[in-house]
Amino acid sequence: MDNLQEQLQHLINTKTKPLGALGRLEDIALQVSLIQQTTKPAISNPQIVVFAGDHGIAATGLVNPYPQAVTAQMVLNFLSGGAAINVFCKQNNIGLTVVDAGVNYDFDKSNMSASKFVDAKIAHSTSNYLEEDAMTIEQANKAIESGRAIVKQLAATQCNCIGFGEMGIGNTSSASLLMSAVTGISLNECVGRGTGANDVQLRIKLETLKKAFQFHQLQQYNKAPVELLCKISGFEIVMMVGAYLQATEERMIVVVDGFITTAALLIARLIKPSIVDNCIYAHTSGERGHEQMLQYLNAKPLLNLGMRLGEGTGAALAIPLIQSAVNFLNEMASFESANVSTATI
Amino acid sequence: MDNLQEQLQHLINTKTKPLGALGRLEDIALQVSLIQQTTKPAISNPQIVVFAGDHGIAATGLVNPYPQAVTAQMVLNFLSGGAAINVFCKQNNIGLTVVDAGVNYDFDKSNMSASKFVDAKIAHSTSNYLEEDAMTIEQANKAIESGRAIVKQLAATQCNCIGFGEMGIGNTSSASLLMSAVTGISLNECVGRGTGANDVQLRIKLETLKKAFQFHQLQQYNKAPVELLCKISGFEIVMMVGAYLQATEERMIVVVDGFITTAALLIARLIKPSIVDNCIYAHTSGERGHEQMLQYLNAKPLLNLGMRLGEGTGAALAIPLIQSAVNFLNEMASFESANVSTATI
Repeated sequence: MDNLQEQLQHLINTKTKPLGALGRLEDIALQVSLIQQTTKPAISNPQIVVFAGDHGIAATGLVNPYPQAVTAQMVLNFLSGGAAINVFCKQNNIGLTVVDAGVNYDFDKSNMSASKFVDAKIAHSTSNYLEEDAMTIEQANKAIESGRAIVKQLAATQCNCIGFGEMGIGNTSSASLLMSAVTGISLNECVGRGTGANDVQLRIKLETLKKAFQFHQLQQYNKAPVELLCKISGFEIVMMVGAYLQATEERMIVVVDGFITTAALLIARLIKPSIVDNCIYAHTSGERGHEQMLQYLNAKPLLNLGMRLGEGTGAALAIPLIQSAVNFLNEMASFESANVSTATI
Repeated sequence: MDNLQEQLQHLINTKTKPLGALGRLEDIALQVSLIQQTTKPAISNPQIVVFAGDHGIAATGLVNPYPQAVTAQMVLNFLSGGAAINVFCKQNNIGLTVVDAGVNYDFDKSNMSASKFVDAKIAHSTSNYLEEDAMTIEQANKAIESGRAIVKQLAATQCNCIGFGEMGIGNTSSASLLMSAVTGISLNECVGRGTGANDVQLRIKLETLKKAFQFHQLQQYNKAPVELLCKISGFEIVMMVGAYLQATEERMIVVVDGFITTAALLIARLIKPSIVDNCIYAHTSGERGHEQMLQYLNAKPLLNLGMRLGEGTGAALAIPLIQSAVNFLNEMASFESANVSTATI
């Protein structure tokens, strides 16, 4: 145990409260302070970045109850402020950036505020991974670099706390395939209802994804993260992998959202295992598979509200709790400073 | 199902998100709207009221690792802004009122801002319930009236969302006895470590409380709430019972905190069963017994962070989530207004 950690534990233990009585907030206060290497941590300019991309497989309708067009429609909804992530970011004073990582639509850039929208389109959609690789290695590398560049720019605005979200009809399918390939957990347990598949749709989704798993022999790629991404992921997922990598290098607090964003973390962690030291897990999603994914990562999320919306909404709701952890460490009196007696044991 | 409830469910279902994807926030949005009987709910001037009182039994040292003097010391800490509840209220723009319901200390009123402190002292402490009733019926009735009056005054400031907290060395003991008497659950399962009893202290606490339970024949009082309060509760708990009753009559959203505040709710509910319609449960406390108490009430708390500090801290952290529920209902676009396609099922 290094000296800073001891100092921090002493600070936490001498606040005017019974030992350990702030529960998980005490863990978070310690973690944030260690990320920032200080006894006076601070959250500065928190941000959510939503990466949006379309999936070739979605055009088949085999894995998604909503049509592919919804990806672009929801991006427009983000840009006009009407989505859940807009509401929660506004409430909690979190900046929001929306990234076109590969949406099948040409956005009219004259009509939107540049600060909120980043055009990083790799292509109008991935290829259909039932028939070929979703993307080339060049596209994947370009997406990783774009994700890095976006985070680097935010770091330059003093942002030190970041959460990622996603929008992409069909992307729970990629996340399930990534989860199964990396963790070895059977696809049956990794595939869920996504935006709301009924029983018939769920069965078709699972059968379709089993074919994709077989077609690409995914079990062979659980140690080859970028190759795995090329086979069955989406541009928004790959860009997020780059964003995770850069955020950790910038020593940011990384607030991990739901099923798809945690799947992207599985890949980023293969590339750089220490990345998880910077991660705070926002919530357990209602999407099947997320709980097991979190267990695999030994993660203890802050919230469990049955949410399964994506967009970074879980992260946006968890950031005030992280702020509370920082605040109690900075602002609470100690037993000594407040003249409060300690326990007689 | 009345018309308003149908209208609200339709509003929630047509927001730009998959059906049910905001999980518990959707339940909260519905509940708040039904409390306020509107499709445009609002949280106005949220408040936490911390009731503080001393317990005769605490002077024996049999049930509490911290000395009784800590109750007064912590009240002074609340008044100078150094406690956890101060930090969280400040962060989340929640008003804080501290009430002397019966602390064994004479506070210097010249020295404090009147808006934050209410002198409603019933006595300097309850009597030791190992030997006699903790309080008289007159004291209990007076405390209930004081609790009602405090909430009534806050209602006049347009507060429509309130959480209660408590401070009182020894008060987990009263809460355990109340829980066992009302629910019929064995005292063994209702008694926990409170502020941090070690194994020896916990054994002594449990044996002591078994004697108290026996001495007062508490199982006979599970339908006589005020008599039960007189026997083994504390002034802060009784005052909170009055506060719960008034808050419901004022149609407030009542944010229920932890072990002691939920025990007070058990009593308020015996007096007025419909009170729970207004209650939103903030968190599952780390104090043993709270989870079973919540199950008894069929309550689904928003947070589970292993916190066991009291003071209303769980409530203060949950209020932003309730605000998020209200905000998504008021601010999110609908599929129609945002031109987003719905599911093809």
